[in-house]
Amino acid sequence: MDAAAPTGLWLIGARGSVATTAITGLLALRAGVVPATGCVSAQPHFDELRLPAWEDLVVGGHDIVSTPLAERAAQLSEAGVVPPRVLDAVRGRLDTVESELREGYHPATNSGSQTDAARRLADDITDFARRHGLARVVVLNVSSTEPAFPGLPEHGSLEALEAAMAVPGRTVLPPSSLAAYAALRAGCSYVDFTPSTGIRLPALEHLAARQSLPYAGSDGKTGETLVRSALAPLFASRALRVRSWAGTNLLGGGDGLTLADSEHAGSKLASKGRGLATLLGEDVVAPLHIDNVPDLGEQKMAWDNVSFEGFLGARMSLQFTWTGYDSALAAPLVLDLARFTSAAHAAGQTGPLGALGFYFKDPMGTDEHRLAEQAAELAGWAAKL
Amino acid sequence: MDAAAPTGLWLIGARGSVATTAITGLLALRAGVVPATGCVSAQPHFDELRLPAWEDLVVGGHDIVSTPLAERAAQLSEAGVVPPRVLDAVRGRLDTVESELREGYHPATNSGSQTDAARRLADDITDFARRHGLARVVVLNVSSTEPAFPGLPEHGSLEALEAAMAVPGRTVLPPSSLAAYAALRAGCSYVDFTPSTGIRLPALEHLAARQSLPYAGSDGKTGETLVRSALAPLFASRALRVRSWAGTNLLGGGDGLTLADSEHAGSKLASKGRGLATLLGEDVVAPLHIDNVPDLGEQKMAWDNVSFEGFLGARMSLQFTWTGYDSALAAPLVLDLARFTSAAHAAGQTGPLGALGFYFKDPMGTDEHRLAEQAAELAGWAAKL
Amino acid sequence: MDAAAPTGLWLIGARGSVATTAITGLLALRAGVVPATGCVSAQPHFDELRLPAWEDLVVGGHDIVSTPLAERAAQLSEAGVVPPRVLDAVRGRLDTVESELREGYHPATNSGSQTDAARRLADDITDFARRHGLARVVVLNVSSTEPAFPGLPEHGSLEALEAAMAVPGRTVLPPSSLAAYAALRAGCSYVDFTPSTGIRLPALEHLAARQSLPYAGSDGKTGETLVRSALAPLFASRALRVRSWAGTNLLGGGDGLTLADSEHAGSKLASKGRGLATLLGEDVVAPLHIDNVPDLGEQKMAWDNVSFEGFLGARMSLQFTWTGYDSALAAPLVLDLARFTSAAHAAGQTGPLGALGFYFKDPMGTDEHRLAEQAAELAGWAAKL
Amino acid sequence: MDAAAPTGLWLIGARGSVATTAITGLLALRAGVVPATGCVSAQPHFDELRLPAWEDLVVGGHDIVSTPLAERAAQLSEAGVVPPRVLDAVRGRLDTVESELREGYHPATNSGSQTDAARRLADDITDFARRHGLARVVVLNVSSTEPAFPGLPEHGSLEALEAAMAVPGRTVLPPSSLAAYAALRAGCSYVDFTPSTGIRLPALEHLAARQSLPYAGSDGKTGETLVRSALAPLFASRALRVRSWAGTNLLGGGDGLTLADSEHAGSKLASKGRGLATLLGEDVVAPLHIDNVPDLGEQKMAWDNVSFEGFLGARMSLQFTWTGYDSALAAPLVLDLARFTSAAHAAGQTGPLGALGFYFKDPMGTDEHRLAEQAAELAGWAAKL
Repeated sequence: MDAAAPTGLWLIGARGSVATTAITGLLALRAGVVPATGCVSAQPHFDELRLPAWEDLVVGGHDIVSTPLAERAAQLSEAGVVPPRVLDAVRGRLDTVESELREGYHPATNSGSQTDAARRLADDITDFARRHGLARVVVLNVSSTEPAFPGLPEHGSLEALEAAMAVPGRTVLPPSSLAAYAALRAGCSYVDFTPSTGIRLPALEHLAARQSLPYAGSDGKTGETLVRSALAPLFASRALRVRSWAGTNLLGGGDGLTLADSEHAGSKLASKGRGLATLLGEDVVAPLHIDNVPDLGEQKMAWDNVSFEGFLGARMSLQFTWTGYDSALAAPLVLDLARFTSAAHAAGQTGPLGALGFYFKDPMGTDEHRLAEQAAELAGWAAKL
Repeated sequence: MDAAAPTGLWLIGARGSVATTAITGLLALRAGVVPATGCVSAQPHFDELRLPAWEDLVVGGHDIVSTPLAERAAQLSEAGVVPPRVLDAVRGRLDTVESELREGYHPATNSGSQTDAARRLADDITDFARRHGLARVVVLNVSSTEPAFPGLPEHGSLEALEAAMAVPGRTVLPPSSLAAYAALRAGCSYVDFTPSTGIRLPALEHLAARQSLPYAGSDGKTGETLVRSALAPLFASRALRVRSWAGTNLLGGGDGLTLADSEHAGSKLASKGRGLATLLGEDVVAPLHIDNVPDLGEQKMAWDNVSFEGFLGARMSLQFTWTGYDSALAAPLVLDLARFTSAAHAAGQTGPLGALGFYFKDPMGTDEHRLAEQAAELAGWAAKL
Repeated sequence: MDAAAPTGLWLIGARGSVATTAITGLLALRAGVVPATGCVSAQPHFDELRLPAWEDLVVGGHDIVSTPLAERAAQLSEAGVVPPRVLDAVRGRLDTVESELREGYHPATNSGSQTDAARRLADDITDFARRHGLARVVVLNVSSTEPAFPGLPEHGSLEALEAAMAVPGRTVLPPSSLAAYAALRAGCSYVDFTPSTGIRLPALEHLAARQSLPYAGSDGKTGETLVRSALAPLFASRALRVRSWAGTNLLGGGDGLTLADSEHAGSKLASKGRGLATLLGEDVVAPLHIDNVPDLGEQKMAWDNVSFEGFLGARMSLQFTWTGYDSALAAPLVLDLARFTSAAHAAGQTGPLGALGFYFKDPMGTDEHRLAEQAAELAGWAAKL
Repeated sequence: MDAAAPTGLWLIGARGSVATTAITGLLALRAGVVPATGCVSAQPHFDELRLPAWEDLVVGGHDIVSTPLAERAAQLSEAGVVPPRVLDAVRGRLDTVESELREGYHPATNSGSQTDAARRLADDITDFARRHGLARVVVLNVSSTEPAFPGLPEHGSLEALEAAMAVPGRTVLPPSSLAAYAALRAGCSYVDFTPSTGIRLPALEHLAARQSLPYAGSDGKTGETLVRSALAPLFASRALRVRSWAGTNLLGGGDGLTLADSEHAGSKLASKGRGLATLLGEDVVAPLHIDNVPDLGEQKMAWDNVSFEGFLGARMSLQFTWTGYDSALAAPLVLDLARFTSAAHAAGQTGPLGALGFYFKDPMGTDEHRLAEQAAELAGWAAKL
């Protein structure tokens, strides 16, 4: 077992803003032109772990769009996410990654069965691993949030699922779940940074178990929920009674467009809501909105109002405003997750990696939503790897 | 050893807003007319501890003003801190506490030596304990923040201190420290909810050790610093680099008047600043103001702007606004501290109670400022009492 | 013509929070126990006008609920809107107003035709005027916002409307419009403080013209839109380009319940939106939400984020948070509108009173939405009365 | 009289951020690569005025530092104020302006009398006007805010002043006033965009009158005070009683460094305070701070809390946060002021131009601080030019 051998990071949605920032940033870290700000795994207390070094991470991926990475990186530079000097430093190397990107799966363009589609996806990953002599590959989903996909009886067992997938023209899995299936079939761990269905189907969890593979997710915690997971424990630990917690999210870019549309937002809003109730120990009134505000570009903004009650019923309040670049917040976590999941795989861990709950709005394998406790759990888990 | 025997709570500044709210609230809790919102020690996970029950706490105290408690409680009701129905429920019993209040020490009215003054203060407490058959008394300072008091060589040893105190007309200790001295001499534990000097002099710490007494402090964490201690770890745990953390505090009431005056604010601002540097692991630009805004009455408000840097140097920000009633935030903590300190005394603990750092801006006996870690430490410590 | 003769104020929704606060406040002003804070018409520069004095205003009204005014006033006192000492000062006089309240119209309980219902409503008002020897009566709608009512061909002409109203069991007008019809038939001016349809139907505007009556509305401007109408001109006058203006409203009380329901909110949101586009001179991205947050009680809160562009395309922003008591903001305006509309009626003005646009989110008779210009227009108009 | 003839704009502090942004922006406007966002004088309703066109403005100036303009522009581009494509478009032309810059006056490096120094400054301007055949020159101060300068008896009359100035080694005028003196002596109008003393001395105002020259100032209104001048009238016009108005300003760049220093901030804070009292019609508690937060770079941020009282004493509040680029806010106003002041000069106006109060925190020649009224006054005045 050698966690530090060349490791693959295969990105689903590899030309998206998060992926492009992660790729650009990884190249910049390798080139030594930026510090590892935002990369938790680069903090001193993880130094003794045998995590893959920046040099050891090889990136490839699937996407359904074909805009060249270099062009996406230039757009992100215009938008203020990638400084010009960083872009200059990595420009040439983006093409190397470009050559590792393959066409993703989209139901509208898939003429055959989902079995065939999954095989193609898995082959892309296997070829990638073989070409680069990779010890293992982490498949990580950073594609756009999908609309909610209906539950089907076939999701309950692997046999039923695979039978249904073999029927030409039938769409029994949403793209994120097909990607997870392909990853597992290719012997890869799977991480979902989105709230899409992904691996969260009994049949797929069963497959992961059978393949002895670890997985993690879901929905990267990078903004409003991140702050909530630091603040909500304050009220609980001080025996203050939260009466309502209202939130508004303003998103620009493609994310705003996708998520302000109610069908896609469904999974996102549900994922945000679950955490709050757990954090506070009870349900509170918690209206929540996601608005599309295109002029914000790559920025996102959240405003929350917490109304709470103290001693003798005194009414008090806390408001916060969070303004950040979504991709700059998410990208270093993508690199962290690649390193930690790879190390977990190398260490023989299987099933949901609850210790990575620190990174997610809707963590699998744990009910812990409190940020400080999650950070401690991550550190403790990593120390034992 | 019986932690649940009648226990005294002796308040320095017993007619102030915090003390009056604590007293009124304690009577209301005993009368069963309010829930214990804001009282950490009343949370289920402390149930197994033998903390003094609300019925077991007997309150007395010193103050240099003489406004009757009932009048102070009525003012706090006007100001929105004490609901009218609570005031109605406890009115009669306030007089019982009133009869336990004694005149406090003020250098301007003290004609003799500080030794004499300390003896009188200690006698007041001893009489109180004897009258009520108290197992022990916690002396707790909630008086107004003092101006900074100069360090003197006599503070370094108990012998030198006592020699200086005996000189008529000499003021070698500020009132808070004289109160701490008297408390220790009377065999009582001492808690400082203010940033005043109090027990924090080598001579007094030495006296506490000799008397085998526990003590705790200092400066109750009830607002801006409370939120900071929940939020700052977010940045540290996510490897985000805080560049500046600016804060503004608007205070009404007597607190605003005292603290906006730069001489008194000195110790408060220093106490707030120490914590932030520790929380972030490095010094950051952190301008901080306390303004007197009388129309806010018992309310206080804080606005903070955190400017931070993420992946690839992306500039982002967090702002928060906290609006609360200072006394409603502080009073339940005063009751908590009385219960926990009494239990620690009963359990034979001595010296600074670092596990109570959860309650303080500038905790003695610990360097931990992170709220979640402090909460965990408190729970662990209490479980072992 | 004597504008200062006894004048009636007939409130539709007379037991609601706004009406109860207006009534309680009027009685308190008469009793001299409060200053006229929030009453624009009581400012010195209106002194020379012959507006009805507080003593000259006689109040009656309709409501479909029957909770006694005194009970409603007590609830508002609990909620922090009416100070206890004000309640004490006016308690007896509330019963005098109570005796002037009559049962309002509700389609669900109306068995006959709308003609019959309107006659009953008009008779109530006429009796009220006769009993008190009133020179004139202002009918003012402060009832809950109605769901949108479909446009009908009959709304286009008075004849067609009255023919349809005569059909038993047919509901051709929503309650607010039936109230406006009854008011006009009783020879009264009509003011709509809500976004409901009210008088805004060609048939009713025609009736007002035929009766030579003035009217005003609609939708009282008391919070987010008030601030917007002061701030938006800043951007316009400085040639700054607003790119988006996002808003979130948190409402407690019955208002939150009514308006967070999308059907009722329709008219409210439309009314808020129209103004912003006019103020900025162009449509901007302006997502807007109204959330029901019951624990806020009578308070309401708005948060807006304005994203704008300056010289050389620099991106900048303004956020504001507004926290107020809805009824305390609205009630003095209700009194102002009664005084000004009565004076306009006395002066022989007819049709929409555009000069009262200062008070409304969606002003009739003017396109001016800028607050400063509206204030100047009001002052100029009043000076000429 | 030909307002549109070539006009000079002579900047004091010509290498500062505001000046550099104004110069860069003017060149970009001439090149047609940016719209005139933020330039009030470019709005359609000023089209009929014969203001100097962008092509007609010739720029020169004094500064005591020597960093080349092109380098300063590059720094401002790094800081996000000047977009890279704008910098590219004007780069060559910056050198043309560079050649028009001369060494400014600093008391520490002036060995002779202030009379000599003033003569040199005036000669620089006269040469500039002659070289370019300028009809007139507007001298405009955008240099760093000076420390308060003590009032001297010599400031009271021109004769006394000039006698004192002639004494070698004596510093009877601060640099801003010496610049104003030189401007007037050179027959130029003078505008002060800073809160420094500038022309505001009886002797200099007398000189302006004798020379029949107009002048304007002082202290450009670009942030917190701008918002206040739009919001404060809301409270006044609605008869709401402001109880306190607290403000915090966070500044980066050189401005933060200069102004957070209490000696320099004196004039700035005084200038901010005067306006608020005038706007509200009474003095209110209004604590105000300016903090130096270097990491903000060219950005500035203000947070204000307005606590106010409404009907029946209801306590309510408004908070706002303003985040902007100081230079991007100020630069277009500098160009406006050059155009309007030149037109006023051409039209034969003399003395303080109160109609330009729209641009200033502490306007000369008017007591009007309300933004909407100032905008109307500017438009009316300009229409009559």
